[in-house]
Amino acid sequence: MSPKITTELLKQLRQVMKSPKYVQEPVQAYIVPSGDAHQSEYIAPCDCRRAFISGFDGSAGTAIVTEQHAAMWTDGRYFLQAAHQMDNNWTLMKMGLKDTPTQEDWLVSVLPEGSKVGVDPFIIPADQWKRMSKALRSAGHDLVPVKENLIDTIWTDCPQRPCKPLITLDPSYTGVSWRDKIVALRSKMAERKVLWFVVTALDEVAWLFNLRGSDVEYNPVFFAYAVIGMNTIRLFIDGDRMMDPAVREHLQLDSTLEPEFKIQVMPYGSILSELQAVGAGLSPKEKVWLSDKASYALTEAIPKAYRYLTPYTPICIAKAVKNASETEGMRRAHVPKGTVTEIIAADKAEEFRSQQKDFVELSFATISSTGPNGAIIHYKPVPETNRTLSVNEIYLLDSGAQYKDGTTDVTRTMHFGIPSAYEKECFTYVLKGHIAVSAAIFPNGTKGHLLDSFARSALWDCGLDYLHGTGHGVGSFLNVHEGPCGISYKTFADEPLEAGMIVSDEPGYYEDGSFGVRIENVVLVIPAETKYNFKNRGSLTFEPLTLVPIQTKMIDVNLLTQKECNWVNDYHQKCREVIGAELERQGRHEALRWLIQETEPLIRVQ
Amino acid sequence: MSPKITTELLKQLRQVMKSPKYVQEPVQAYIVPSGDAHQSEYIAPCDCRRAFISGFDGSAGTAIVTEQHAAMWTDGRYFLQAAHQMDNNWTLMKMGLKDTPTQEDWLVSVLPEGSKVGVDPFIIPADQWKRMSKALRSAGHDLVPVKENLIDTIWTDCPQRPCKPLITLDPSYTGVSWRDKIVALRSKMAERKVLWFVVTALDEVAWLFNLRGSDVEYNPVFFAYAVIGMNTIRLFIDGDRMMDPAVREHLQLDSTLEPEFKIQVMPYGSILSELQAVGAGLSPKEKVWLSDKASYALTEAIPKAYRYLTPYTPICIAKAVKNASETEGMRRAHVPKGTVTEIIAADKAEEFRSQQKDFVELSFATISSTGPNGAIIHYKPVPETNRTLSVNEIYLLDSGAQYKDGTTDVTRTMHFGIPSAYEKECFTYVLKGHIAVSAAIFPNGTKGHLLDSFARSALWDCGLDYLHGTGHGVGSFLNVHEGPCGISYKTFADEPLEAGMIVSDEPGYYEDGSFGVRIENVVLVIPAETKYNFKNRGSLTFEPLTLVPIQTKMIDVNLLTQKECNWVNDYHQKCREVIGAELERQGRHEALRWLIQETEPLIRVQ
Repeated sequence: MSPKITTELLKQLRQVMKSPKYVQEPVQAYIVPSGDAHQSEYIAPCDCRRAFISGFDGSAGTAIVTEQHAAMWTDGRYFLQAAHQMDNNWTLMKMGLKDTPTQEDWLVSVLPEGSKVGVDPFIIPADQWKRMSKALRSAGHDLVPVKENLIDTIWTDCPQRPCKPLITLDPSYTGVSWRDKIVALRSKMAERKVLWFVVTALDEVAWLFNLRGSDVEYNPVFFAYAVIGMNTIRLFIDGDRMMDPAVREHLQLDSTLEPEFKIQVMPYGSILSELQAVGAGLSPKEKVWLSDKASYALTEAIPKAYRYLTPYTPICIAKAVKNASETEGMRRAHVPKGTVTEIIAADKAEEFRSQQKDFVELSFATISSTGPNGAIIHYKPVPETNRTLSVNEIYLLDSGAQYKDGTTDVTRTMHFGIPSAYEKECFTYVLKGHIAVSAAIFPNGTKGHLLDSFARSALWDCGLDYLHGTGHGVGSFLNVHEGPCGISYKTFADEPLEAGMIVSDEPGYYEDGSFGVRIENVVLVIPAETKYNFKNRGSLTFEPLTLVPIQTKMIDVNLLTQKECNWVNDYHQKCREVIGAELERQGRHEALRWLIQETEPLIRVQ
Repeated sequence: MSPKITTELLKQLRQVMKSPKYVQEPVQAYIVPSGDAHQSEYIAPCDCRRAFISGFDGSAGTAIVTEQHAAMWTDGRYFLQAAHQMDNNWTLMKMGLKDTPTQEDWLVSVLPEGSKVGVDPFIIPADQWKRMSKALRSAGHDLVPVKENLIDTIWTDCPQRPCKPLITLDPSYTGVSWRDKIVALRSKMAERKVLWFVVTALDEVAWLFNLRGSDVEYNPVFFAYAVIGMNTIRLFIDGDRMMDPAVREHLQLDSTLEPEFKIQVMPYGSILSELQAVGAGLSPKEKVWLSDKASYALTEAIPKAYRYLTPYTPICIAKAVKNASETEGMRRAHVPKGTVTEIIAADKAEEFRSQQKDFVELSFATISSTGPNGAIIHYKPVPETNRTLSVNEIYLLDSGAQYKDGTTDVTRTMHFGIPSAYEKECFTYVLKGHIAVSAAIFPNGTKGHLLDSFARSALWDCGLDYLHGTGHGVGSFLNVHEGPCGISYKTFADEPLEAGMIVSDEPGYYEDGSFGVRIENVVLVIPAETKYNFKNRGSLTFEPLTLVPIQTKMIDVNLLTQKECNWVNDYHQKCREVIGAELERQGRHEALRWLIQETEPLIRVQ
């Protein structure tokens, strides 16, 4: 992985930052956030502006370029990767470390008095705009919206915005029709006394209409907005996708419908002007509901007095709690349907997955890493870094797929030779943490961040830790990372856990320059049986949906308690039963033999 | 505990809410917060306005009175107590439960259009004002400052504001002189480029000047403000306390000093006008540093552009990390120096404490509760509720004292007969939680909220929980509750833990109408030895400063792991050694025999 040389690009960017063609007044700094206009985590190639200007292509990071400096903020998952991908023009700002300045503090420390800081108002979320703008103003600077994206002006070979065909999902997959979802949404709107709801997140649009797309790699979404009124539905979407008879039928575009379910299809680019028209026509007390993560541009379209902003939309909450059809689908999706280099191994994993029923695409770029590459938390093998798997190094495979019935995400860490005592020790602490979360019992409504330390306790006892959260929400044939719940030491974006939510459980340990360990299952929040049931508040625990053996060769059994040992044996028994039956049905005898061997019970010497 | 009858008082309050003598325009609602003008948790009798109007005298709660309603918000520690103390005029709003409205939402739901909501601007913290004001404004109402406190106008026998003599502490207790504290503060001010710092919290004034008082029961503080400039020190304090030769000597009021250490003494009541004068004299870029918890009145005295507000002041942070003299003092303070009813038992505990060297006063009202009273988390025995201790009920004693060398706070739960299996089961889960926190190892800089679930895990496994945080910061001969650190499921007011900080570790379990269990030690954050030391980030753990036997009769040994069993035995061994030696020295042979008996090692049947 050699760094991208950015000297010339930065020179061009600094020129357009002063060019009257693009900015009313010169801007002394320009912010390039990670996201797209929908605040997506994974983005289309045309939106990878931060990667284009810096070379760093991790999923999270913000670049700021001033006349003198170029700086990149990213978190612990990406410290190594960003350092490898960026050249000396860039300063890496390691978020979460004590001495790292915030973007605001840094800007204040480097900017000349009375500076202007530019940003694309479609890319920056309204809540970030507000915080940044306030901090800059109090130091005598100004945050200004720059209508034309300045990266796009210098990005001569920027790819086209994708516009791929749609997939329709009937209620056997989704459990609920789009009409019923609209009805439920309108009742939430009535409760909050709002007249309009603006759907800005791509997975929320997809979920609401029971449609899927492939505009963004791994995430089965499509570029669209929706504006839902009490009697109107407007869908902003481009291309001839609405000409597809299956889509027209699904959305009942040609049927005689009650007017409140008639969908008006409008061009994607007309959202701002349409929303401004909605905003201009409001009477006092008529409110418009937006996520506070919606772009500054769309938020500004509604006059302040008419805005109703919440951190979580009703769609986000409804989507997180899976119904019976979705849960069943997730269960099905986790049963197989499914001398080597990292890339070959990753390709093989994809090949196996793609043979399974209802396979659509991968749910994220497969992380197939061996030895020191395993310590790069979000590593993706490319020809320059591709290492050969060997009997001397730990191999980490983090992969998942989108099936029509669900989304999977699983990590296993393996050794094909004889692991060292230290490697086994670290693996076993990570396993103890994985079990501590998976087997945890907690009261209904507990927030995920309260479970995060359970995953770390065994590592902490020996002075080890990992610089990422323990789990994320998982969509149902939707984004593999979704809100509003998760398990992290970070306490934002953390709605209480309830039965039906699905999250990942993935503690790890990373030894820079040496190896990485991660053990990840997707788990479903389910009711638990407890002796006293929290005075009828209700008890919750997790059920692993992922059923893949955990390599027993890597476990130092003496570090496990009897309870932990039983957990591993019970889990492996379930893998044998469920996956074994399916392998038998598919006639995969070699795989079945491997499964039996890998799920032999552990025996702990007392 | 019979409720206070408030019908007549509420009628009077509703009259003054409309009286032009006190309000420019009638207010439709009046907020009565808990605190005083310094946002103290414990307050002087003259500031107990919320208790006066409602009867509920717990440490936390906010009353709101409208023309039709009277409502009280308080948290899980006080649900039972508040319900007992308030009459039917009041609605109890149980904070933390899902269906309880916030104060703002409730006001919006009950107020007629365009209402005015009044509050004393000296009592409401600026951050609360801001949040409340914004929420009300967006619903068409107004939050207005009412200069004269309306409760005071109807409180005919309101006690005088206390003005007790001061105690001076020399550096053998404090480790650092007040002059050096001023120097350190000014260097923090220079770092943040502020010219003035306003000290509003009573414990911060006391800490800064190495003075203690007794204006507020249990908290060794005195009513005062301070305003520190780069070359000036102003102390706002009433009474003839500054005439005391010891105080004059301590503060060097009569010495020839460098002008920047010369303390100007001013009347307590002149703070607002003095601060307004400071505010009026500022040039651009000259900033004044205040806590964002300072009162709205004082915050407003400084024009917005000149304010520098932070959630934690530099004094709060410096005070939390105890130096060697303070830590040693806290250790000393925890070694003794010190057929029955709850009240007699509480009095006896105070008597014993008061015989010890350096005793000043209790650090909070002793909680001495037996049987069902134990389930009232912040119970204080009064004649109407006083129960006789018996051999049939669990007894809970939560007590502490202020010594010149430190502050103590300890809870033990005991049975004088034969506890039931269920009582032992609950006690043992609480003990497991106590040990899990006390023995936890974690990386340097971990926030306390990440340890909270360790205290609950054993309870959760059986479907039990407790509705309070696990620990609070403890001052050094200062408030027994202090910021900025703690161990709670709540994540606000939670600065990272570092060596030298002192917190309590006090999980519990409360069975309404039956019994309460709590096991509390004060613990010091100390460096830990770990195998891998978090890549030199450093490891922390806790050392118990409290050394009081935990009643082994209440422990179901079979529910403990061997590690937990060893922890109890090691702890009891230390109690024997340290406390035993002191009892021997003091010639308290009966107490020594009791100690030996209570610290017999547990034996776990394998």
